[in-house]
Amino acid sequence: MFTYFMPTKLIAGENAVIENAQELIIGTKAVIITGSTSGKRSGALGDVTAVLTENSIPYLVYDRIENNPSIECTVEAAKAAREFGADFIIGIGGGSPLDAAKAVAVYTANEPIDGSDFEMMDIYKGSYKNKPLPMVAIPTTAGTGSETTPYSILTLHSIHNKKSFSSPDVFYKTAFLDGRYTVELPLQIARNTAVDAMCHLLEGFTNKRSTPASDYIALEGLRVIGSNLDILRNGNPTVEACTELLWGATLGGMVIAQTGTTIVHSMGYPLTYYKNIPHGMANGLLLGEYIALAHKEMPWKTDLYLEALEMDSIDDIQQLLKEILPCDVKFTEEEISEWTKTTIQSKNVAVCPFDVTRDLEIEIYKKCLL
Amino acid sequence: MFTYFMPTKLIAGENAVIENAQELIIGTKAVIITGSTSGKRSGALGDVTAVLTENSIPYLVYDRIENNPSIECTVEAAKAAREFGADFIIGIGGGSPLDAAKAVAVYTANEPIDGSDFEMMDIYKGSYKNKPLPMVAIPTTAGTGSETTPYSILTLHSIHNKKSFSSPDVFYKTAFLDGRYTVELPLQIARNTAVDAMCHLLEGFTNKRSTPASDYIALEGLRVIGSNLDILRNGNPTVEACTELLWGATLGGMVIAQTGTTIVHSMGYPLTYYKNIPHGMANGLLLGEYIALAHKEMPWKTDLYLEALEMDSIDDIQQLLKEILPCDVKFTEEEISEWTKTTIQSKNVAVCPFDVTRDLEIEIYKKCLL
Repeated sequence: MFTYFMPTKLIAGENAVIENAQELIIGTKAVIITGSTSGKRSGALGDVTAVLTENSIPYLVYDRIENNPSIECTVEAAKAAREFGADFIIGIGGGSPLDAAKAVAVYTANEPIDGSDFEMMDIYKGSYKNKPLPMVAIPTTAGTGSETTPYSILTLHSIHNKKSFSSPDVFYKTAFLDGRYTVELPLQIARNTAVDAMCHLLEGFTNKRSTPASDYIALEGLRVIGSNLDILRNGNPTVEACTELLWGATLGGMVIAQTGTTIVHSMGYPLTYYKNIPHGMANGLLLGEYIALAHKEMPWKTDLYLEALEMDSIDDIQQLLKEILPCDVKFTEEEISEWTKTTIQSKNVAVCPFDVTRDLEIEIYKKCLL
Repeated sequence: MFTYFMPTKLIAGENAVIENAQELIIGTKAVIITGSTSGKRSGALGDVTAVLTENSIPYLVYDRIENNPSIECTVEAAKAAREFGADFIIGIGGGSPLDAAKAVAVYTANEPIDGSDFEMMDIYKGSYKNKPLPMVAIPTTAGTGSETTPYSILTLHSIHNKKSFSSPDVFYKTAFLDGRYTVELPLQIARNTAVDAMCHLLEGFTNKRSTPASDYIALEGLRVIGSNLDILRNGNPTVEACTELLWGATLGGMVIAQTGTTIVHSMGYPLTYYKNIPHGMANGLLLGEYIALAHKEMPWKTDLYLEALEMDSIDDIQQLLKEILPCDVKFTEEEISEWTKTTIQSKNVAVCPFDVTRDLEIEIYKKCLL
């Protein structure tokens, strides 16, 4: 038995927002959820506010979403949205704003009050009395895939880690994929985020929960990224290539919407939380060792994804990751041992194609980081 | 610029209905829309009524959907559904009941009254004051793809042809794909319907409206069907293979939900209307000539779909179609000339990869039928 569900409408191409105002405007009063820079620098915020103004739609810009947003940050944004009277949400940014917007959608429709029947942590229950506000997404990085997943990963300082919630009610209604918004990204950010997309595709493809409905999407995503590897190596992309990479990342979201991720993601979180390593890079540092272990269990799948990536061996992938993910952060055995106390608890452990023990996680960290 | 939208949840595998009661029951009172035999013979109707009974959900079985249902037939079914007080619809069958159920959903929520602001033919406007009833689909043939399209093709005796309406509001909420319901289909019906799916995949793949978001789905659908050609030749499928063929047909629906069909479909309709040739066979009689013409415009696409089908040439496909679509109906030049007066008006003409004139349509019919 397998299932497939991904209800988001996708609109890909130059000027997707400007030319599709009726798909952007899904209510009467908008709150725009974004970070301090990504919306403005990418040009996406300007396009959105121009369309809203032209159509006389009042809007509030909430641009204080942090990187790796905390749950408290999304509660604050929801308070602002509720006071403004927003009835729909426009998420603009990388994974942080796009994930945060989902929590804002829930908290705007369901005010969290201590001691009431809906407290802040109840967002993790995944079903809500009032339907979350409808949302549209405008990614400004090609990586997260948040625009096509029902997941939102929030930082919980109480557990010194990230924790995701999931609900079919937080799929975006529409996502706009326009390479104009990513074409001027600094090369290292483009690389980190593309590697995040590769991780989604490869973790989904090798996942125990992978299905006939997720595998062909994963291979297509890898084909799209594989045909744009030069850009990740050397930069200088065209707008068209950037739209392609956005499409590849969106396919990655469609895959993990079915399968979820693996220990690459759960083991990557502490690298971000404790060492401030960007999310995509954190995953990428661990990916090479992960696929080597997965290969032993499903070599036929390795052949398929190598063909899609137009690469010859797992070594080639590991080499590429080293080349495009320069990282001089230093790690200690003590840190690694400490982190694995938490990471081995992740439910992602169970969906890996190989048996995962705490010792194995320690070994993976050591091989990748020391 | 390209778009992608297909919000239906898919559940594929043995006992999909029985094991997913909560996805089947999307309201409090059900009307089951089916044909006189398909629901019962397939076993799907029995599974559905068992689940509804067990969950104390009242239901009405409307089993008078004709083959190639007329618009009047769907109005009558809607009247019954309205009087019963149904708030959701379960479509069971091949393309006829699954397409009809979409019209029933519209007419149940919007009673058509002559002289009012919603008359019977207003279903063709594609947007409705009241949202159509929510629906789930249970295909009992692997062909139509109706479970993942926003289209419904109805017979209009007033124009002596079929005419489709389309609305994003008539996508099914969930489709259940269980090979148990198709495993005992008579071989010729299995063949005709599989050829219909092949047509959707190939017409979508060669369509001027094809996109990066539809092409990879089309190739996957062709791979699925290509790996099951033995069954179409020789019969005796397993339940598992039948679920695979259902999945292939569903992928075909996902493709034409993005692209629409081509003249294979619009030229096929008169063969069904006037000569009573089953829909899939009617398309299949025309497909070979169509792909030969498309090949001249996009030979690189031919290479891709032949590889997916595991076939060597267009000749091989034409040979297969001859083999599995025995048809001894006789046609005349007069009939052909008459039909093309209508078929050349179809909007499908504009999306073919080659220029279509009435003369060309006459030539295609002659080559295929005389």
